[in-house]
Amino acid sequence: MISPQPYKWFLETTTAVEGHMHAIRRTLVEAQTKFQHVEIIETHSYGKCLILDGRIQSSQADEFIYHEALVHPGMLTVDHAPETALVIGGGEGATLREILRYPSIRRAVMVDIDDEVVALCRQHLPEMHQGVFDDPRTEVRHEDARAWLEKTRERFDYVSIDLTEPLEEGPAALLFTREFYTLVRDRLTADGTMTMQAGMTKVGELTFFTAVHRTLRDVFPVVAGYQSFISCYGTPWGFITASKRVDPVRLDVPAVDRLMAERVRGTLGYWDGVTHQHAFALPRHVRKAIDAETRISTDAAPLVFL
Amino acid sequence: MISPQPYKWFLETTTAVEGHMHAIRRTLVEAQTKFQHVEIIETHSYGKCLILDGRIQSSQADEFIYHEALVHPGMLTVDHAPETALVIGGGEGATLREILRYPSIRRAVMVDIDDEVVALCRQHLPEMHQGVFDDPRTEVRHEDARAWLEKTRERFDYVSIDLTEPLEEGPAALLFTREFYTLVRDRLTADGTMTMQAGMTKVGELTFFTAVHRTLRDVFPVVAGYQSFISCYGTPWGFITASKRVDPVRLDVPAVDRLMAERVRGTLGYWDGVTHQHAFALPRHVRKAIDAETRISTDAAPLVFL
Amino acid sequence: MISPQPYKWFLETTTAVEGHMHAIRRTLVEAQTKFQHVEIIETHSYGKCLILDGRIQSSQADEFIYHEALVHPGMLTVDHAPETALVIGGGEGATLREILRYPSIRRAVMVDIDDEVVALCRQHLPEMHQGVFDDPRTEVRHEDARAWLEKTRERFDYVSIDLTEPLEEGPAALLFTREFYTLVRDRLTADGTMTMQAGMTKVGELTFFTAVHRTLRDVFPVVAGYQSFISCYGTPWGFITASKRVDPVRLDVPAVDRLMAERVRGTLGYWDGVTHQHAFALPRHVRKAIDAETRISTDAAPLVFL
Amino acid sequence: MISPQPYKWFLETTTAVEGHMHAIRRTLVEAQTKFQHVEIIETHSYGKCLILDGRIQSSQADEFIYHEALVHPGMLTVDHAPETALVIGGGEGATLREILRYPSIRRAVMVDIDDEVVALCRQHLPEMHQGVFDDPRTEVRHEDARAWLEKTRERFDYVSIDLTEPLEEGPAALLFTREFYTLVRDRLTADGTMTMQAGMTKVGELTFFTAVHRTLRDVFPVVAGYQSFISCYGTPWGFITASKRVDPVRLDVPAVDRLMAERVRGTLGYWDGVTHQHAFALPRHVRKAIDAETRISTDAAPLVFL
Repeated sequence: MISPQPYKWFLETTTAVEGHMHAIRRTLVEAQTKFQHVEIIETHSYGKCLILDGRIQSSQADEFIYHEALVHPGMLTVDHAPETALVIGGGEGATLREILRYPSIRRAVMVDIDDEVVALCRQHLPEMHQGVFDDPRTEVRHEDARAWLEKTRERFDYVSIDLTEPLEEGPAALLFTREFYTLVRDRLTADGTMTMQAGMTKVGELTFFTAVHRTLRDVFPVVAGYQSFISCYGTPWGFITASKRVDPVRLDVPAVDRLMAERVRGTLGYWDGVTHQHAFALPRHVRKAIDAETRISTDAAPLVFL
Repeated sequence: MISPQPYKWFLETTTAVEGHMHAIRRTLVEAQTKFQHVEIIETHSYGKCLILDGRIQSSQADEFIYHEALVHPGMLTVDHAPETALVIGGGEGATLREILRYPSIRRAVMVDIDDEVVALCRQHLPEMHQGVFDDPRTEVRHEDARAWLEKTRERFDYVSIDLTEPLEEGPAALLFTREFYTLVRDRLTADGTMTMQAGMTKVGELTFFTAVHRTLRDVFPVVAGYQSFISCYGTPWGFITASKRVDPVRLDVPAVDRLMAERVRGTLGYWDGVTHQHAFALPRHVRKAIDAETRISTDAAPLVFL
Repeated sequence: MISPQPYKWFLETTTAVEGHMHAIRRTLVEAQTKFQHVEIIETHSYGKCLILDGRIQSSQADEFIYHEALVHPGMLTVDHAPETALVIGGGEGATLREILRYPSIRRAVMVDIDDEVVALCRQHLPEMHQGVFDDPRTEVRHEDARAWLEKTRERFDYVSIDLTEPLEEGPAALLFTREFYTLVRDRLTADGTMTMQAGMTKVGELTFFTAVHRTLRDVFPVVAGYQSFISCYGTPWGFITASKRVDPVRLDVPAVDRLMAERVRGTLGYWDGVTHQHAFALPRHVRKAIDAETRISTDAAPLVFL
Repeated sequence: MISPQPYKWFLETTTAVEGHMHAIRRTLVEAQTKFQHVEIIETHSYGKCLILDGRIQSSQADEFIYHEALVHPGMLTVDHAPETALVIGGGEGATLREILRYPSIRRAVMVDIDDEVVALCRQHLPEMHQGVFDDPRTEVRHEDARAWLEKTRERFDYVSIDLTEPLEEGPAALLFTREFYTLVRDRLTADGTMTMQAGMTKVGELTFFTAVHRTLRDVFPVVAGYQSFISCYGTPWGFITASKRVDPVRLDVPAVDRLMAERVRGTLGYWDGVTHQHAFALPRHVRKAIDAETRISTDAAPLVFL
């Protein structure tokens, strides 16, 4: 049993009228960076958790679900074994970790504006990054992702967008617009893919997910939404893969399993052919909400979460 | 906006160290029956919620997910259009509602020991039962389900077990044992099916689900677990279909959609062919936990939740 | 023990960073009146509680402390046995109840703008009002207290101000200004007194209390602050007596006890000579905060709480 | 404003159905010692707080109230300027700090069994101890207080008992019994006094306070209970002074102020003559509860809190 009775709680209000509660075991670090408030706590139920501006980003116990879900659908859908990858955000290093499981990857760039968050994750969350920051294929840049995308001439087989949802207009909101996604598309190779986390998909709170989905459809010929349970969030979570022509939905169970056997080193905990089928087969009410959505986020009128 | 600021909260601790929070708008009714504490509250996020012994059972906003998930996989898998059904538990009447969508059903028996809960649901949750208690095909019995199953000679094409998980040894725990499931099996027609709700499937809290799954495999030739997000629970939820020979997993997307078009009246919100595929394609870590489970609940050593 | 485990909680945030928690047993009534949100709940610890706009006003278990503290210091300080009294606010009827303990009272007017709150208290809180609304000496008026004070020519031996603190500018804030207190003073008899509740006196949250105290000193020759623990608030509470010449602080323990024996019918739970001494002997840090205060609330610049 | 919104909360349940909430700013240290769980957090409302086994002991913002209330009534009541003092418990060093304000003190022994708690307080709470551990008059011993009292031949003018209430039978409960208090009495000089903290005095939760009071009356000729608001606890708190012949209640306001001017160095925040009067003038319901109490804690049947 727990002794003493848990008395410190992380109360994450996912909306003004709903929330999720975690008993806190201890706090490893907290700091205010130039960009955000960061904290790494250890909970009784999920181990270490990264919290940015009061919102839980990932937990030791179930980050394998989040990060495998974020990366593999995109990486597997590229026609050829992907060689170059870009991570936008992704402070913990776990997105990079999943990408570097592919021996075909020879260059992986991570652009996360907040060097302090990355440094704290590197120090306190070795279980998550597992040394990827020292991988010779890795290049970490701490600058504005949009500015960097605008100036670079590089093309990537895979781009992962691992950013928190914008709560107000400002620079963060400009990483979720049609213009930004156009930039991303133009930096993809012909059969390249991008995947992104795209917010809650729980009943009544689907609107960020569907608006991002609709915005992407204005930019990419192929857009496929999927979802995974993130237990530590207390809510299902939406993700989206987009590309110029390759489509993850066309991959059946054996195809995914065969591609994983060919391309991925090591054994995953969450993703495989059956999970691929599970995640992309969205429940009916989610599909209907996607179909009904008309909003497009633009630089002139950027989408804000909540 | 909400005025005043929400100040009444339903804090449901799903474990001793984790919970879900709902702001309460108002309380419709609360009572102590012979068997349990019952309450129907209205939350800001999910509308009316039925709460038994402090645990949320269903909410107005997402009960369609729970009840469609509980009923249709079983009803659709029966070889012929099902004619008789039994609901064990199912106080709200919504399980019955989904069953009675099938015009082929000519008799539906519901055995819920707690007449007071059923009466309160009938009065306060018309959105859920939608008048099924007045359907001429319905027979509601308030008695011990196991005793009734032991004495009845009836056979059913479909049995739905909609009971809360037992928190301690006692009569409730005896509705989750090998002996009880044997009784259920023996009351099924040759191609009959049963489905049941089987507890949380979130990371670290899979053990009730896997033990029930294992117990059922000792009794039924075909056992298929599946899961659905129940947003108001703040955790994914497991269900299981079992039968003597028919298998829901063999139904592909078009087959489910065709069977639903043939058998089901009206339009569902959650279940269809794609959702069927989604739900039965369990994520890898859930499949692995099922495979690793060895515990069997018996009358001599009944399984207790948590 | 409590069964089931308490799961409904009243979380009253007394500031943005501090609060008090009460497990809710049941809700007796809730309504939105023309003026405020009202709710009467039953808590495990304090029995029935009246809640206005999310803030607890009084509880069955300790309202004797609040209402005795609000009334008796003023009533006892009047030179003669008081004959007329006015209650401004006071929805529960318990303020009136304490006043009517004095057989010398022949007329008690209560002006509470919210007839719906009064009706709900009358119906659901008989333990508090104890039938005072049917006392022939009582007159209840549902109108704006300030407007009524402006037009009446009556004089009162005692005035009780039992209003919630204003959270924003508007009519409520105009019941805490120098101009309003001047009106009150002018409706007192020569040796009449007023008492009022005046907000928290906990460390760091004394500013409403001290500002009201300072404002009153601009209007009344005699102003005496005192405090009482209100357990159900989770914070000490300030009160103030003011008058044109009589002073509660001059009453020593035997004097209070003698006056109570002469004037008050029945036995009180909280107030007597020793409690009088306790309450008016403010701790040093509270006295220092009163001395340091310079703000005065006026109609032109009304004080707002928090 | 607070940014981000407070999301970490210290939820202290003072009973199973009531609690106090503090938003946590950060955690300075947490550890499990041989004896207890210790944590020093910083709250938004009260600054640094010491928490032992999940219960708040003192806060930076209002510990002056707790520690002045604990020490001065005893120290001032000794007939002569006290020269020797003993603190039982008192980890933060703040009890010692108040004692060492008396230049007449030439020796102050503190016996706190938990050297790790004392070391952590010494490191992290300099605002509380203000260097007293380095005062040449101080002797700190880390051993069982009862065993030490049994073997020592020393006599003290003043003894302060600053221990947490025992939650279960065991060594801690044996520091609240008649036999233990007899030991304390026998180590006092002829006009020596002891004071102790004695638990909550809120409505409905007075039973620990009254039972300790009753137990002390079996041992000491003079026993005087008093109370102070401890804002960070969210509940009023009881203290008791006991002696062989001197009585704090006999000291009137000028006497206390004169004694403080003579004996105490520096200016206090809470205690003075008026506060003395405030604290010892217990409200009527508290006095009645004391009078009605019959329980005595003994080694054979020790009192347990709650």
